Amino acid sequence: MTINHQILLASRPQGEATVDNFKLVEAPVPTLDQLTDGQVLVRHHFMSLDPYMRGRMNDSKSYAEPQPLNTVMIGGTVGEVVASKHAKFAPGDKVLGMGGWQEYSVVDASVKGAMLHKVDTTHIPLSAYLGSVGMPGVTAWYGLIKIIAPKAGETVVVSAASGAVGSVVGQLAKARGCRVVGVAGGADKCRYVTEELGFDACIDYKVHNDPKAFYKALKEATPNGIDGYFENVGGMILDAVLLRMNAFGRIAMCGLIAGYDGQPLPMQNPALILVNRLKIEGFIVSEHPEVWPEATMELGTMVATGKMKFRESVAQGIASAPEAFLGLLKGKNFGKQLVKLI
Amino acid sequence: MTINHQILLASRPQGEATVDNFKLVEAPVPTLDQLTDGQVLVRHHFMSLDPYMRGRMNDSKSYAEPQPLNTVMIGGTVGEVVASKHAKFAPGDKVLGMGGWQEYSVVDASVKGAMLHKVDTTHIPLSAYLGSVGMPGVTAWYGLIKIIAPKAGETVVVSAASGAVGSVVGQLAKARGCRVVGVAGGADKCRYVTEELGFDACIDYKVHNDPKAFYKALKEATPNGIDGYFENVGGMILDAVLLRMNAFGRIAMCGLIAGYDGQPLPMQNPALILVNRLKIEGFIVSEHPEVWPEATMELGTMVATGKMKFRESVAQGIASAPEAFLGLLKGKNFGKQLVKLI
Repeated sequence: MTINHQILLASRPQGEATVDNFKLVEAPVPTLDQLTDGQVLVRHHFMSLDPYMRGRMNDSKSYAEPQPLNTVMIGGTVGEVVASKHAKFAPGDKVLGMGGWQEYSVVDASVKGAMLHKVDTTHIPLSAYLGSVGMPGVTAWYGLIKIIAPKAGETVVVSAASGAVGSVVGQLAKARGCRVVGVAGGADKCRYVTEELGFDACIDYKVHNDPKAFYKALKEATPNGIDGYFENVGGMILDAVLLRMNAFGRIAMCGLIAGYDGQPLPMQNPALILVNRLKIEGFIVSEHPEVWPEATMELGTMVATGKMKFRESVAQGIASAPEAFLGLLKGKNFGKQLVKLI
Repeated sequence: MTINHQILLASRPQGEATVDNFKLVEAPVPTLDQLTDGQVLVRHHFMSLDPYMRGRMNDSKSYAEPQPLNTVMIGGTVGEVVASKHAKFAPGDKVLGMGGWQEYSVVDASVKGAMLHKVDTTHIPLSAYLGSVGMPGVTAWYGLIKIIAPKAGETVVVSAASGAVGSVVGQLAKARGCRVVGVAGGADKCRYVTEELGFDACIDYKVHNDPKAFYKALKEATPNGIDGYFENVGGMILDAVLLRMNAFGRIAMCGLIAGYDGQPLPMQNPALILVNRLKIEGFIVSEHPEVWPEATMELGTMVATGKMKFRESVAQGIASAPEAFLGLLKGKNFGKQLVKLI
């Protein structure tokens, strides 16, 4: 019998999340003849770790239902079909799904809305479907194109700039002729953002680590002010950006990772929204499925032609997932955080 | 020689504005033969006092240039032409302009963009052109219709509900089939808002005067949550409303009167923008002149047919303006604050 290693949510975090909130368990993997009609057995090659998962660990009102206790952590996966009782899937097919934090999953592909999609790995690496060509990439695309809607010559700032979402935001904005300024933590990440991803500047918030110093660095990097801001972090960075926003600026609010663990982080001066006639819009990519074809077409083409670069932090083995996830929340990853399972 | 009494900005407020920031002076009123071609001499019947004027008293970056020191306070006026060297204006014409805090003004109506418009007082009282059918009314119309865009059955909340802007917001929203909840200070204002203006409920922030109590009252008044919020105040009220906003709610940010005098008032939990996928938009009505015809058509028709009610606080005489203005900032007015000059 093959064993499926799974990670469950064992308890809800009190403040900061810890490894004790998770539990590694074993479960049997069904054989082909144990599958019912329509079911597909997938072996996961990679699972995705994303900041939104932290929100679901809480039992509070949020956009998604809380993750139930003692169930497998929800999350995106890519892998290969190993057994199938569905006509559209055959062993060997590469697939994208929501298999969760485990090595195998069974999907009933005959159910309407089932999350299992065949993907083409001829020109695009399998793992990219969890990153630049997947949910993070479409998140970047939606916030930048549909909310910020940047014009050539405008200045766009993005926080968590070396991450799965931020790196795509910046490269899409550069392709549209914008001045692009990233915010990232550490010299390595900042160098990567400017030298590899082609951003015009990147501010290291670990060096400029108080509001005054950060504002000063931001001001220098945005001589013409800021027209669009893609928010992944919140807190001090959001406050400083608000002070540099131009009239009619747009802020796409995608994440506020700085406040995930504890007390809400206030916005110091919301009057700036009025003074500068800003538009701030929160969004969740899963509520905008209509943009996926257009977004993934552009993202896939850019990745396949080498015009969209990305970097991955790959943890090895299912047991490494909790620690890798906690590191992601602290910015220890460098690029898209994945767990490799085979 | 006729004397024109004027009020100048004498100094900039340090914190709270006071009467010492203003100065009453005299100037001569020109005679017809002293006017140059294109000039029109207007005697003001009413001048308007509006919260935005407080922002212009500061010397800080804002949407409008600061009011220069030792100049006549800027502001809207309605009055009557008393002498004219412009073919389109004749003595006796009722006009709307930006004459400022003084009894008379001279406008060169031949200059492109000159602010002088003849108004019809057959069906609409002259003073209403400074209120429900004027800048405050169009402000209400723009924020409600263009930003909040309410649908029948939705819940709309408006702060400063008995004021020049808030009263129009609520009546427009009621006309569109919304549940409308006002926030106002004092039992008289709340009674007026529900009994006269027809709002479904009104919360007295002077009774529910701490965040917990206010939130509780707001929750009771908005059993289905809040879909649209028209913000005139900021601070505690904004924080409480954010906690009651439904997914995809819209906030039109028109004013933040609570923070005009001192330190910025923070927004306690901006993460709610993301959690509830809200859209928050700051706006200034003067930047949207394209909506004036449509907005004033609806507002004028409603006022002329008695479907839009309004109330005015009228101070008597130019010398009363500073005190009336400071009272407006503290919510001492009841309805549109005017100064009657004749």
